[in-house]
Amino acid sequence: MRIRLVLEYDGTGYCGWQLQRPGEDSIQARLEAALAQLFGQPIRVTGAGRTDAGVHALGQVAAFDAPRQCEMAEVARALNALLPPDICVRQAHPAAPGFDPRRNAWLRVYEYRILNQPTRSAFDYRHSWHIREPLDLAAMAAAARQFIGEHDFAAFRTQGTPVRSTVRRIYLSQWSTEGSRLTYRIEGSSFLRHMVRTMVATLVQVGRHRLGLAEVQALLRSGTRGQAPAAAPAGGLFLVGVRYGLNSGRLYERTPC
Amino acid sequence: MRIRLVLEYDGTGYCGWQLQRPGEDSIQARLEAALAQLFGQPIRVTGAGRTDAGVHALGQVAAFDAPRQCEMAEVARALNALLPPDICVRQAHPAAPGFDPRRNAWLRVYEYRILNQPTRSAFDYRHSWHIREPLDLAAMAAAARQFIGEHDFAAFRTQGTPVRSTVRRIYLSQWSTEGSRLTYRIEGSSFLRHMVRTMVATLVQVGRHRLGLAEVQALLRSGTRGQAPAAAPAGGLFLVGVRYGLNSGRLYERTPC
Repeated sequence: MRIRLVLEYDGTGYCGWQLQRPGEDSIQARLEAALAQLFGQPIRVTGAGRTDAGVHALGQVAAFDAPRQCEMAEVARALNALLPPDICVRQAHPAAPGFDPRRNAWLRVYEYRILNQPTRSAFDYRHSWHIREPLDLAAMAAAARQFIGEHDFAAFRTQGTPVRSTVRRIYLSQWSTEGSRLTYRIEGSSFLRHMVRTMVATLVQVGRHRLGLAEVQALLRSGTRGQAPAAAPAGGLFLVGVRYGLNSGRLYERTPC
Repeated sequence: MRIRLVLEYDGTGYCGWQLQRPGEDSIQARLEAALAQLFGQPIRVTGAGRTDAGVHALGQVAAFDAPRQCEMAEVARALNALLPPDICVRQAHPAAPGFDPRRNAWLRVYEYRILNQPTRSAFDYRHSWHIREPLDLAAMAAAARQFIGEHDFAAFRTQGTPVRSTVRRIYLSQWSTEGSRLTYRIEGSSFLRHMVRTMVATLVQVGRHRLGLAEVQALLRSGTRGQAPAAAPAGGLFLVGVRYGLNSGRLYERTPC
């Protein structure tokens, strides 16, 4: 039977969702090790998004084929007993045969957190980008709105990754604030590698008045990497959730945000 | 000149505020090392509360004598560059000569955080006590109110610590909730060792219906340790702030809560 898991993890100590080089420690490897222990045989998992080293998840979705019938609550409980404290299973559900968390995903939700205050924090340093100088939030919000719609995001990806198309559809791109905490939320069909972090770095340059709205527009139109700022630090980024359509048995089912 | 610092720290990796045994790593030792580097000579600091191993602070207060005149913003900036990422200086202020953060304190504020949900969290495990089963919050709130006032807290302290008196005055003792996050807040003149964590463990037993209000009342009257439950885990406890009176130059000055 195919099972879909919703995972939460603190990516600080990991090389990312996927193993890049032998000897590294990935979320996927930890999950596969726990599943092998649980079922007594090697089990392969697929994830919805390949989060990079240091990137976190509140609602990563993964799927695997269980070699026997099992109770969902029992799978979650057993995996949580086997996984390290910084990775946990929030939900386990039966999935349609052949359910592919990556290909079947309709929408991915990411958040990027910034701590915008003069002094750093002893608690948030793994989970936010600390920026001391005040940022122009109105300008950042206006620039963020420019990303909504269908655009060629070639300027915002890591060079050299082979992809069929660099056109992506963005449904939501907005900032919210709570005291000195700024959160950027973006919802899109899918994302290119380093795309969200490069967009955040670009918006922060707008907030510092080092880039204007017209320059962001030009970046979006240019289609070439190199002019956009370097990606924002990994620690501020969270894969908040993934939504699926009818093909996985639920309409706009949403992982906890 | 005497300087007062307000410190924030994640106590997870430390043996507590104070060094207990040689070879251990304490917040105080890290702060004194940073000060020695900054001023080029050994400097002794005094803290308002001796937080235990694994206990955190949002507003610990410490003081030291600087060997030369210095600018407060510069002291904070320099120390934050020298301290590890899980310790930081939030404020630096000139203090009255002889200011003693421990003896001059009027009020200490602690918070204890509980994550009350079936599944654990990959983010909160260092900063809260995870309790799976539902708790009776109304009963816990009623029991918490019994602590308000002047009582002999001998039943809630760690045995063997020599203290002049075990009577303490509690001004506030209450629970608040935000979704599955429960926070217990207590304000008092001062606290005995392990007192807050033992009170929290007692209140949780009330929430599990294993202790009644009358039994908590009896514990408060008994004056002997041994009947109260073992202290709640250190990771959930935060020293939120310390308030001072006129003798330190400010009336009811309050550290960030």
